Amino acid sequence: MKIGFVQFAPVFGEVASNLARAKTLLAGFDGDIVVLPEFFNSGYLFVSKDEVERLAEEIPTGPTTTMLLEIARAQNIHIVAGLPERAGERFFNSAVVVSPQGLLGTYRKSHLFFEEKLFFTHGDTGMKVFDIAGCKVGVMVCFDWFFPETMRVLALAGADLVCHCANLVLPFCQNAMVTRCLENGVFAITANRTGNDIRGAKRLDFTGASQITGPRGEILYRATAERDEVFSVEVDIHRSRDKQLNPFNDLFADRRVDCYGAITTAL
Amino acid sequence: MKIGFVQFAPVFGEVASNLARAKTLLAGFDGDIVVLPEFFNSGYLFVSKDEVERLAEEIPTGPTTTMLLEIARAQNIHIVAGLPERAGERFFNSAVVVSPQGLLGTYRKSHLFFEEKLFFTHGDTGMKVFDIAGCKVGVMVCFDWFFPETMRVLALAGADLVCHCANLVLPFCQNAMVTRCLENGVFAITANRTGNDIRGAKRLDFTGASQITGPRGEILYRATAERDEVFSVEVDIHRSRDKQLNPFNDLFADRRVDCYGAITTAL
Repeated sequence: MKIGFVQFAPVFGEVASNLARAKTLLAGFDGDIVVLPEFFNSGYLFVSKDEVERLAEEIPTGPTTTMLLEIARAQNIHIVAGLPERAGERFFNSAVVVSPQGLLGTYRKSHLFFEEKLFFTHGDTGMKVFDIAGCKVGVMVCFDWFFPETMRVLALAGADLVCHCANLVLPFCQNAMVTRCLENGVFAITANRTGNDIRGAKRLDFTGASQITGPRGEILYRATAERDEVFSVEVDIHRSRDKQLNPFNDLFADRRVDCYGAITTAL
Repeated sequence: MKIGFVQFAPVFGEVASNLARAKTLLAGFDGDIVVLPEFFNSGYLFVSKDEVERLAEEIPTGPTTTMLLEIARAQNIHIVAGLPERAGERFFNSAVVVSPQGLLGTYRKSHLFFEEKLFFTHGDTGMKVFDIAGCKVGVMVCFDWFFPETMRVLALAGADLVCHCANLVLPFCQNAMVTRCLENGVFAITANRTGNDIRGAKRLDFTGASQITGPRGEILYRATAERDEVFSVEVDIHRSRDKQLNPFNDLFADRRVDCYGAITTAL
Protein backbone atom coordinates (compact mmCIF):
# COMPACT_ATOMS: atom_id res chain seq x y z
CA MET A 1 0.00 0.00 0.00
CA LYS A 2 1.27 3.49 -0.87
CA ILE A 3 0.38 6.30 1.50
CA GLY A 4 1.16 9.97 1.31
CA PHE A 5 0.13 13.58 1.59
CA VAL A 6 -0.27 16.86 -0.20
CA GLN A 7 1.32 19.91 1.44
CA PHE A 8 0.63 23.42 0.19
CA ALA A 9 -0.38 26.94 1.26
CA PRO A 10 -4.11 27.62 0.92
CA VAL A 11 -5.09 31.28 0.65
CA PHE A 12 -7.74 32.35 3.13
CA GLY A 13 -11.20 32.57 1.61
CA GLU A 14 -10.11 31.70 -1.93
CA VAL A 15 -11.91 28.39 -2.15
CA ALA A 16 -11.97 28.06 -5.94
CA SER A 17 -8.25 28.61 -6.34
CA ASN A 18 -7.42 26.45 -3.31
CA LEU A 19 -9.46 23.60 -4.80
CA ALA A 20 -7.78 24.10 -8.16
CA ARG A 21 -4.35 24.02 -6.57
CA ALA A 22 -5.20 20.89 -4.58
CA LYS A 23 -6.53 19.22 -7.73
CA THR A 24 -3.34 19.99 -9.62
CA LEU A 25 -1.20 18.62 -6.80
CA LEU A 26 -3.38 15.52 -6.34
CA ALA A 27 -2.94 14.77 -10.06
CA GLY A 28 0.69 14.07 -9.20
CA PHE A 29 -0.15 11.67 -6.37
CA ASP A 30 0.90 8.09 -6.94
CA GLY A 31 -0.57 5.89 -4.23
CA ASP A 32 -3.63 4.54 -2.42
CA ILE A 33 -4.35 6.92 0.48
CA VAL A 34 -3.54 10.63 0.49
CA VAL A 35 -4.09 13.16 3.27
CA LEU A 36 -4.65 16.89 2.80
CA PRO A 37 -4.30 19.57 5.49
CA GLU A 38 -6.99 20.81 7.85
CA PHE A 39 -9.21 23.47 6.18
CA PHE A 40 -7.32 22.92 2.92
CA ASN A 41 -10.13 24.51 0.93
CA SER A 42 -10.77 27.65 2.99
CA GLY A 43 -7.65 28.64 4.84
CA TYR A 44 -7.52 28.62 8.60
CA LEU A 45 -7.75 31.99 10.30
CA PHE A 46 -11.44 32.78 10.58
CA VAL A 47 -12.10 36.09 12.34
CA SER A 48 -15.89 36.19 12.28
CA LYS A 49 -18.89 33.92 12.38
CA ASP A 50 -20.00 35.43 9.08
CA GLU A 51 -16.90 34.04 7.41
CA VAL A 52 -17.57 30.60 8.83
CA GLU A 53 -21.13 30.73 7.55
CA ARG A 54 -19.91 31.77 4.12
CA LEU A 55 -17.11 29.22 3.78
CA ALA A 56 -18.44 26.17 5.60
CA GLU A 57 -19.92 23.48 3.37
CA GLU A 58 -22.37 20.67 3.70
CA ILE A 59 -20.94 17.20 3.35
CA PRO A 60 -21.13 15.62 0.78
CA THR A 61 -23.05 18.14 -1.32
CA GLY A 62 -20.68 21.13 -1.05
CA PRO A 63 -18.16 21.91 -3.78
CA THR A 64 -15.15 20.65 -1.81
CA THR A 65 -16.45 17.17 -1.10
CA THR A 66 -17.92 17.03 -4.59
CA MET A 67 -14.50 17.71 -6.08
CA LEU A 68 -12.77 15.20 -3.81
CA LEU A 69 -15.29 12.52 -4.78
CA GLU A 70 -14.62 13.18 -8.47
CA ILE A 71 -10.85 13.01 -8.00
CA ALA A 72 -11.04 9.86 -5.89
CA ARG A 73 -13.10 8.15 -8.58
CA ALA A 74 -11.03 9.44 -11.49
CA GLN A 75 -7.66 8.60 -9.92
CA ASN A 76 -8.85 5.51 -8.00
CA ILE A 77 -7.46 6.81 -4.70
CA HIS A 78 -8.69 7.44 -1.16
CA ILE A 79 -8.53 10.99 0.20
CA VAL A 80 -8.71 12.27 3.77
CA ALA A 81 -9.07 16.05 3.85
CA GLY A 82 -10.07 18.79 6.27
CA LEU A 83 -12.78 21.40 5.68
CA PRO A 84 -15.18 23.58 7.66
CA GLU A 85 -18.49 21.71 7.78
CA ARG A 86 -21.97 23.19 7.98
CA ALA A 87 -24.52 20.89 9.64
CA GLY A 88 -27.78 22.76 10.07
CA GLU A 89 -27.09 25.58 12.53
CA ARG A 90 -23.80 24.10 13.66
CA PHE A 91 -20.29 24.26 12.26
CA PHE A 92 -17.55 21.66 12.73
CA ASN A 93 -13.85 21.41 11.98
CA SER A 94 -14.18 18.20 10.01
CA ALA A 95 -12.31 15.72 7.86
CA VAL A 96 -13.95 13.69 5.13
CA VAL A 97 -12.85 10.22 4.08
CA VAL A 98 -13.51 9.71 0.41
CA SER A 99 -13.13 6.53 -1.66
CA PRO A 100 -13.45 5.83 -5.39
CA GLN A 101 -16.89 4.44 -4.55
CA GLY A 102 -18.08 7.47 -2.60
CA LEU A 103 -18.00 9.10 0.82
CA LEU A 104 -16.89 6.72 3.57
CA GLY A 105 -17.63 9.18 6.37
CA THR A 106 -16.82 12.31 8.30
CA TYR A 107 -14.83 12.89 11.49
CA ARG A 108 -15.46 16.06 13.48
CA LYS A 109 -12.45 17.41 15.44
CA SER A 110 -12.76 16.46 19.11
CA HIS A 111 -10.28 18.94 20.61
CA LEU A 112 -10.70 22.47 19.28
CA PHE A 113 -7.69 24.81 19.35
CA PHE A 114 -7.66 28.44 20.41
CA GLU A 115 -10.27 30.69 18.71
CA GLU A 116 -11.79 27.77 16.84
CA LYS A 117 -13.88 27.60 19.99
CA LEU A 118 -15.50 30.90 19.03
CA PHE A 119 -16.80 29.55 15.75
CA PHE A 120 -17.02 25.77 15.82
CA THR A 121 -18.78 23.11 17.87
CA HIS A 122 -16.76 20.36 19.56
CA GLY A 123 -16.87 17.19 17.48
CA ASP A 124 -19.74 14.83 18.24
CA THR A 125 -18.52 11.83 16.26
CA GLY A 126 -16.02 10.43 18.75
CA MET A 127 -12.88 8.82 17.36
CA LYS A 128 -13.61 7.00 14.11
CA VAL A 129 -11.89 4.20 12.23
CA PHE A 130 -12.67 3.48 8.56
CA ASP A 131 -11.87 0.41 6.49
CA ILE A 132 -9.91 1.14 3.33
CA ALA A 133 -9.00 -2.00 1.39
CA GLY A 134 -8.30 -3.96 4.56
CA CYS A 135 -6.39 -1.09 6.18
CA LYS A 136 -8.05 0.37 9.28
CA VAL A 137 -7.75 4.13 9.05
CA GLY A 138 -8.23 6.42 12.04
CA VAL A 139 -8.64 10.14 11.50
CA MET A 140 -7.65 13.11 13.62
CA VAL A 141 -7.45 16.83 13.03
CA CYS A 142 -4.51 18.99 14.15
CA PHE A 143 -4.67 19.71 17.93
CA ASP A 144 -6.20 16.26 18.55
CA TRP A 145 -2.56 15.06 18.52
CA PHE A 146 -1.85 16.91 21.77
CA PHE A 147 -4.06 14.55 23.75
CA PRO A 148 -2.50 11.08 23.94
CA GLU A 149 -5.97 9.65 24.35
CA THR A 150 -6.86 10.43 20.72
CA MET A 151 -4.40 8.07 19.06
CA ARG A 152 -4.68 5.57 21.91
CA VAL A 153 -8.42 5.24 21.35
CA LEU A 154 -7.91 4.97 17.57
CA ALA A 155 -5.22 2.32 18.01
CA LEU A 156 -7.31 0.32 20.48
CA ALA A 157 -10.12 0.45 17.92
CA GLY A 158 -7.76 -1.27 15.49
CA ALA A 159 -6.31 1.62 13.48
CA ASP A 160 -3.30 0.62 11.37
CA LEU A 161 -2.84 4.16 10.11
CA VAL A 162 -3.82 7.54 11.53
CA CYS A 163 -4.55 10.19 8.92
CA HIS A 164 -3.87 13.55 10.52
CA CYS A 165 -5.08 16.71 8.79
CA ALA A 166 -3.16 19.61 10.32
CA ASN A 167 -2.53 23.36 10.32
CA LEU A 168 0.30 23.38 12.82
CA VAL A 169 1.65 26.57 14.32
CA LEU A 170 3.52 25.12 17.33
CA PRO A 171 6.87 23.35 16.88
CA PHE A 172 6.09 20.17 18.83
CA CYS A 173 3.88 17.92 16.77
CA GLN A 174 6.27 16.40 14.27
CA ASN A 175 8.59 15.06 16.98
CA ALA A 176 5.65 14.05 19.14
CA MET A 177 4.32 11.85 16.34
CA VAL A 178 7.39 9.65 16.80
CA THR A 179 6.23 8.96 20.34
CA ARG A 180 2.56 8.64 19.34
CA CYS A 181 3.32 6.05 16.67
CA LEU A 182 5.79 4.18 18.85
CA GLU A 183 3.50 3.93 21.89
CA ASN A 184 0.60 2.73 19.73
CA GLY A 185 2.46 0.75 17.07
CA VAL A 186 0.69 2.51 14.19
CA PHE A 187 1.55 4.44 11.05
CA ALA A 188 0.60 8.11 10.79
CA ILE A 189 0.42 10.67 8.02
CA THR A 190 0.51 14.28 9.24
CA ALA A 191 -0.45 16.53 6.33
CA ASN A 192 0.40 20.07 7.35
CA ARG A 193 0.07 23.32 5.44
CA THR A 194 2.74 25.91 4.74
CA GLY A 195 2.65 29.70 4.42
CA ASN A 196 0.61 31.99 6.61
CA ASP A 197 -2.79 33.52 7.15
CA ILE A 198 -2.76 37.29 7.79
CA ARG A 199 -6.12 38.75 8.74
CA GLY A 200 -5.88 42.36 9.89
CA ALA A 201 -3.69 42.38 13.00
CA LYS A 202 -3.82 38.60 13.31
CA ARG A 203 -1.22 36.40 11.77
CA LEU A 204 -0.43 32.71 11.91
CA ASP A 205 2.61 31.02 10.38
CA PHE A 206 2.29 27.34 9.59
CA THR A 207 5.19 24.96 9.93
CA GLY A 208 4.89 22.57 6.98
CA ALA A 209 7.17 19.57 7.55
CA SER A 210 4.38 17.11 6.83
CA GLN A 211 5.47 13.73 8.06
CA ILE A 212 4.93 10.01 7.62
CA THR A 213 5.83 8.04 10.72
CA GLY A 214 6.11 4.27 11.18
CA PRO A 215 4.92 1.93 13.96
CA ARG A 216 8.36 1.75 15.59
CA GLY A 217 8.75 5.51 15.63
CA GLU A 218 10.59 5.71 12.31
CA ILE A 219 10.28 9.02 10.45
CA LEU A 220 9.71 7.62 6.95
CA TYR A 221 9.65 11.09 5.46
CA ARG A 222 9.51 14.67 6.65
CA ALA A 223 8.70 17.38 4.11
CA THR A 224 10.28 20.78 3.85
CA ALA A 225 8.90 23.65 5.90
CA GLU A 226 8.13 25.82 2.87
CA ARG A 227 7.52 24.01 -0.38
CA ASP A 228 4.40 22.54 -1.93
CA GLU A 229 4.93 18.78 -1.88
CA VAL A 230 3.15 15.66 -3.06
CA PHE A 231 4.71 12.57 -1.56
CA SER A 232 3.96 8.88 -1.18
CA VAL A 233 5.81 5.89 0.20
CA GLU A 234 5.17 2.17 -0.05
CA VAL A 235 4.60 0.58 3.37
CA ASP A 236 3.66 -2.82 4.73
CA ILE A 237 0.63 -1.41 6.49
CA HIS A 238 -0.03 -4.56 8.49
CA ARG A 239 3.22 -4.15 10.44
CA SER A 240 0.91 -2.17 12.71
CA ARG A 241 -0.83 -5.40 13.70
CA ASP A 242 2.30 -6.61 15.48
CA LYS A 243 2.19 -4.93 18.89
CA GLN A 244 5.03 -7.14 20.18
CA LEU A 245 7.93 -4.84 21.08
CA ASN A 246 10.08 -7.82 22.06
CA PRO A 247 9.39 -11.44 23.11
CA PHE A 248 8.15 -10.24 26.51
CA ASN A 249 6.35 -6.95 25.80
CA ASP A 250 3.11 -6.35 23.92
CA LEU A 251 2.07 -2.69 23.69
CA PHE A 252 -1.56 -3.48 24.38
CA ALA A 253 -1.43 -6.60 26.56
CA ASP A 254 1.01 -4.86 28.92
CA ARG A 255 -1.32 -1.95 29.55
CA ARG A 256 -2.32 -1.79 33.24
CA VAL A 257 -5.98 -0.98 32.68
CA ASP A 258 -6.54 -1.56 36.40
CA CYS A 259 -4.40 1.55 37.12
CA TYR A 260 -5.83 3.93 34.49
CA GLY A 261 -9.25 4.75 35.90
CA ALA A 262 -8.55 8.46 36.38
CA ILE A 263 -8.24 8.90 32.62
CA THR A 264 -11.92 8.36 32.00
CA THR A 265 -13.15 10.05 35.18
CA ALA A 266 -14.20 13.68 34.75
CA LEU A 267 -12.21 15.98 37.06
CA MET B 1 12.98 24.48 44.61
CA LYS B 2 16.09 22.77 43.20
CA ILE B 3 15.66 19.43 41.52
CA GLY B 4 18.20 17.12 40.00
CA PHE B 5 19.66 13.69 39.49
CA VAL B 6 22.67 11.48 39.94
CA GLN B 7 23.86 9.58 36.86
CA PHE B 8 26.48 6.87 37.12
CA ALA B 9 27.33 3.28 36.12
CA PRO B 10 26.52 0.73 38.81
CA VAL B 11 28.41 -2.55 38.61
CA PHE B 12 26.21 -5.63 38.64
CA GLY B 13 26.06 -7.34 42.02
CA GLU B 14 28.55 -4.99 43.70
CA VAL B 15 26.08 -3.42 46.13
CA ALA B 16 28.60 -2.10 48.66
CA SER B 17 30.68 -0.28 46.06
CA ASN B 18 27.58 0.98 44.20
CA LEU B 19 26.23 2.41 47.45
CA ALA B 20 29.58 3.99 48.22
CA ARG B 21 29.75 5.56 44.76
CA ALA B 22 26.18 6.87 45.05
CA LYS B 23 26.97 8.31 48.47
CA THR B 24 30.02 10.12 47.14
CA LEU B 25 28.05 11.56 44.24
CA LEU B 26 25.10 12.54 46.44
CA ALA B 27 27.51 14.46 48.67
CA GLY B 28 27.92 16.83 45.74
CA PHE B 29 24.18 17.35 45.27
CA ASP B 30 22.96 20.85 45.94
CA GLY B 31 19.17 20.87 45.94
CA ASP B 32 15.89 19.62 47.39
CA ILE B 33 14.88 16.54 45.38
CA VAL B 34 17.32 14.18 43.70
CA VAL B 35 16.55 11.11 41.60
CA LEU B 36 18.81 8.08 41.18
CA PRO B 37 18.55 5.42 38.45
CA GLU B 38 16.51 2.23 38.53
CA PHE B 39 18.33 -0.58 40.40
CA PHE B 40 21.13 1.87 41.24
CA ASN B 41 22.35 -0.35 44.05
CA SER B 42 22.41 -3.72 42.31
CA GLY B 43 22.87 -3.22 38.60
CA TYR B 44 20.21 -4.25 36.13
CA LEU B 45 20.82 -7.45 34.24
CA PHE B 46 19.63 -10.28 36.48
CA VAL B 47 19.98 -13.68 34.88
CA SER B 48 18.61 -15.93 37.61
CA LYS B 49 16.07 -15.94 40.36
CA ASP B 50 18.88 -16.76 42.79
CA GLU B 51 20.48 -13.41 42.02
CA VAL B 52 17.24 -11.60 42.64
CA GLU B 53 16.84 -13.36 45.97
CA ARG B 54 20.38 -12.46 46.93
CA LEU B 55 20.26 -8.79 45.89
CA ALA B 56 16.68 -7.76 46.61
CA GLU B 57 16.19 -5.89 49.87
CA GLU B 58 13.38 -5.23 52.25
CA ILE B 59 12.19 -1.65 52.49
CA PRO B 60 13.05 0.22 54.69
CA THR B 61 15.25 -2.20 56.64
CA GLY B 62 17.69 -3.22 53.89
CA PRO B 63 21.10 -1.58 53.56
CA THR B 64 20.15 0.53 50.55
CA THR B 65 17.13 2.25 52.04
CA THR B 66 18.98 2.55 55.34
CA MET B 67 21.79 4.44 53.62
CA LEU B 68 19.40 6.66 51.68
CA LEU B 69 17.57 7.55 54.90
CA GLU B 70 20.87 8.51 56.54
CA ILE B 71 21.92 10.67 53.59
CA ALA B 72 18.51 12.35 53.32
CA ARG B 73 18.68 13.26 57.02
CA ALA B 74 22.31 14.34 56.98
CA GLN B 75 22.03 16.45 53.82
CA ASN B 76 18.42 17.55 54.37
CA ILE B 77 17.33 16.35 50.92
CA HIS B 78 14.66 14.13 49.39
CA ILE B 79 15.77 11.14 47.37
CA VAL B 80 13.87 8.99 44.87
CA ALA B 81 15.84 5.87 43.96
CA GLY B 82 15.28 2.49 42.38
CA LEU B 83 16.11 -0.87 43.88
CA PRO B 84 15.00 -4.51 43.73
CA GLU B 85 12.55 -5.01 46.59
CA ARG B 86 11.87 -8.18 48.53
CA ALA B 87 8.37 -8.39 50.00
CA GLY B 88 7.84 -11.80 51.52
CA GLU B 89 7.97 -14.28 48.67
CA ARG B 90 7.59 -11.61 46.02
CA PHE B 91 10.06 -9.30 44.30
CA PHE B 92 9.32 -5.89 42.82
CA ASN B 93 11.18 -3.36 40.70
CA SER B 94 10.63 -0.52 43.14
CA ALA B 95 11.48 3.08 43.86
CA VAL B 96 11.65 4.50 47.36
CA VAL B 97 10.84 8.09 48.25
CA VAL B 98 12.95 9.20 51.20
CA SER B 99 12.76 12.45 53.16
CA PRO B 100 14.92 13.90 55.94
CA GLN B 101 12.15 12.75 58.30
CA GLY B 102 12.03 9.17 57.03
CA LEU B 103 10.51 6.96 54.35
CA LEU B 104 7.61 8.59 52.51
CA GLY B 105 6.72 5.48 50.57
CA THR B 106 7.45 2.99 47.84
CA TYR B 107 6.27 2.74 44.25
CA ARG B 108 6.39 -0.62 42.49
CA LYS B 109 6.93 -0.53 38.71
CA SER B 110 3.64 -1.07 36.90
CA HIS B 111 4.95 -1.98 33.44
CA LEU B 112 7.77 -4.52 33.53
CA PHE B 113 10.25 -4.61 30.64
CA PHE B 114 11.55 -7.69 28.86
CA GLU B 115 13.05 -10.38 31.13
CA GLU B 116 12.13 -8.48 34.27
CA LYS B 117 8.93 -10.48 33.84
CA LEU B 118 10.87 -13.65 34.64
CA PHE B 119 11.98 -12.40 38.03
CA PHE B 120 9.66 -9.64 39.27
CA THR B 121 5.98 -9.22 40.04
CA HIS B 122 3.98 -6.46 38.34
CA GLY B 123 3.60 -3.50 40.66
CA ASP B 124 0.58 -3.56 42.94
CA THR B 125 0.77 0.01 44.23
CA GLY B 126 -0.84 1.78 41.26
CA MET B 127 0.47 5.22 40.35
CA LYS B 128 1.49 7.17 43.45
CA VAL B 129 1.91 10.84 44.23
CA PHE B 130 3.83 12.03 47.29
CA ASP B 131 3.87 15.44 48.95
CA ILE B 132 7.35 16.95 49.31
CA ALA B 133 7.30 20.44 50.80
CA GLY B 134 4.16 21.39 48.89
CA CYS B 135 5.39 19.82 45.65
CA LYS B 136 3.36 16.85 44.47
CA VAL B 137 5.80 14.20 43.29
CA GLY B 138 4.77 11.30 41.08
CA VAL B 139 7.11 8.37 40.59
CA MET B 140 7.67 6.05 37.68
CA VAL B 141 10.31 3.48 36.79
CA CYS B 142 11.90 3.19 33.34
CA PHE B 143 9.52 1.43 30.87
CA ASP B 144 6.50 3.00 32.59
CA TRP B 145 7.26 6.01 30.34
CA PHE B 146 6.28 4.05 27.23
CA PHE B 147 2.63 4.01 28.29
CA PRO B 148 1.11 7.50 28.07
CA GLU B 149 -1.38 6.49 30.73
CA THR B 150 1.33 6.44 33.43
CA MET B 151 2.16 10.14 33.41
CA ARG B 152 -1.43 11.05 32.55
CA VAL B 153 -2.69 9.34 35.69
CA LEU B 154 0.07 10.96 37.77
CA ALA B 155 -0.71 14.41 36.35
CA LEU B 156 -4.45 13.98 36.90
CA ALA B 157 -3.63 13.04 40.49
CA GLY B 158 -1.93 16.42 40.83
CA ALA B 159 1.72 15.64 40.19
CA ASP B 160 3.85 18.73 39.66
CA LEU B 161 6.97 16.67 39.07
CA VAL B 162 7.50 13.12 37.87
CA CYS B 163 10.61 11.44 39.26
CA HIS B 164 11.66 8.79 36.77
CA CYS B 165 14.23 6.20 37.78
CA ALA B 166 15.54 4.61 34.59
CA ASN B 167 17.94 2.12 33.04
CA LEU B 168 17.24 2.98 29.41
CA VAL B 169 18.52 0.86 26.55
CA LEU B 170 16.27 2.16 23.74
CA PRO B 171 16.90 5.57 22.14
CA PHE B 172 13.36 6.98 22.41
CA CYS B 173 12.69 8.04 25.97
CA GLN B 174 14.56 11.32 26.26
CA ASN B 175 12.75 12.86 23.30
CA ALA B 176 9.45 11.32 24.35
CA MET B 177 9.71 13.06 27.72
CA VAL B 178 9.31 16.36 25.87
CA THR B 179 5.91 15.17 24.68
CA ARG B 180 5.01 13.61 28.03
CA CYS B 181 5.75 16.83 29.94
CA LEU B 182 4.07 19.02 27.35
CA GLU B 183 0.85 17.01 27.17
CA ASN B 184 0.58 16.89 30.96
CA GLY B 185 2.09 20.26 31.88
CA VAL B 186 4.48 18.76 34.43
CA PHE B 187 8.17 18.70 35.23
CA ALA B 188 10.10 15.44 34.99
CA ILE B 189 13.49 14.18 36.08
CA THR B 190 14.70 11.11 34.20
CA ALA B 191 17.71 9.70 36.05
CA ASN B 192 19.35 7.19 33.76
CA ARG B 193 22.43 5.08 34.24
CA THR B 194 25.48 4.82 31.99
CA GLY B 195 27.82 1.98 31.12
CA ASN B 196 26.76 -1.59 30.56
CA ASP B 197 25.92 -4.88 32.20
CA ILE B 198 27.63 -7.90 30.65
CA ARG B 199 26.47 -11.25 32.05
CA GLY B 200 27.80 -14.19 30.07
CA ALA B 201 26.42 -13.88 26.54
CA LYS B 202 23.99 -11.18 27.55
CA ARG B 203 24.85 -7.53 27.31
CA LEU B 204 22.95 -4.29 27.75
CA ASP B 205 24.29 -0.82 27.02
CA PHE B 206 22.62 2.04 28.85
CA THR B 207 22.16 5.43 27.24
CA GLY B 208 22.81 7.97 30.01
CA ALA B 209 21.56 11.40 28.91
CA SER B 210 19.58 11.88 32.10
CA GLN B 211 17.19 14.73 31.53
CA ILE B 212 15.17 17.39 33.31
CA THR B 213 12.15 18.49 31.29
CA GLY B 214 9.79 21.41 31.91
CA PRO B 215 5.98 21.70 31.71
CA ARG B 216 6.05 23.32 28.27
CA GLY B 217 8.32 20.65 26.85
CA GLU B 218 11.56 22.52 27.56
CA ILE B 219 14.66 20.38 27.96
CA LEU B 220 16.16 22.15 30.99
CA TYR B 221 19.21 19.91 30.95
CA ARG B 222 20.34 16.75 29.24
CA ALA B 223 23.39 14.96 30.61
CA THR B 224 26.15 13.34 28.64
CA ALA B 225 25.76 9.74 27.51
CA GLU B 226 28.86 8.55 29.32
CA ARG B 227 29.97 10.52 32.35
CA ASP B 228 29.01 10.34 35.99
CA GLU B 229 27.02 13.49 36.68
CA VAL B 230 25.39 15.22 39.63
CA PHE B 231 23.13 18.02 38.48
CA SER B 232 20.46 20.30 39.88
CA VAL B 233 18.48 23.23 38.55
CA GLU B 234 16.28 25.80 40.27
CA VAL B 235 12.70 25.66 39.01
CA ASP B 236 9.40 27.34 39.84
CA ILE B 237 7.76 24.00 40.50
CA HIS B 238 4.24 25.43 40.65
CA ARG B 239 4.35 26.40 36.97
CA SER B 240 2.94 22.90 36.60
CA ARG B 241 -0.30 24.09 38.19
CA ASP B 242 -1.06 26.28 35.18
CA LYS B 243 -2.58 23.94 32.60
CA GLN B 244 -3.66 26.85 30.41
CA LEU B 245 -1.85 26.50 27.08
CA ASN B 246 -3.42 29.72 25.79
CA PRO B 247 -6.53 31.76 26.70
CA PHE B 248 -8.79 29.12 25.10
CA ASN B 249 -7.08 25.80 25.87
CA ASP B 250 -6.67 24.05 29.20
CA LEU B 251 -4.80 20.73 29.02
CA PHE B 252 -7.17 19.04 31.42
CA ALA B 253 -10.49 20.86 30.88
CA ASP B 254 -10.23 20.22 27.13
CA ARG B 255 -9.95 16.47 27.55
CA ARG B 256 -12.89 14.68 25.92
CA VAL B 257 -13.45 12.14 28.64
CA ASP B 258 -16.67 11.15 26.89
CA CYS B 259 -14.56 9.79 23.99
CA TYR B 260 -11.88 7.94 25.95
CA GLY B 261 -13.78 4.93 27.30
CA ALA B 262 -11.74 2.36 25.39
CA ILE B 263 -8.64 3.30 27.39
CA THR B 264 -9.96 1.81 30.60
CA THR B 265 -11.77 -1.12 29.00
CA ALA B 266 -9.80 -4.37 28.96
CA LEU B 267 -9.39 -5.68 25.39
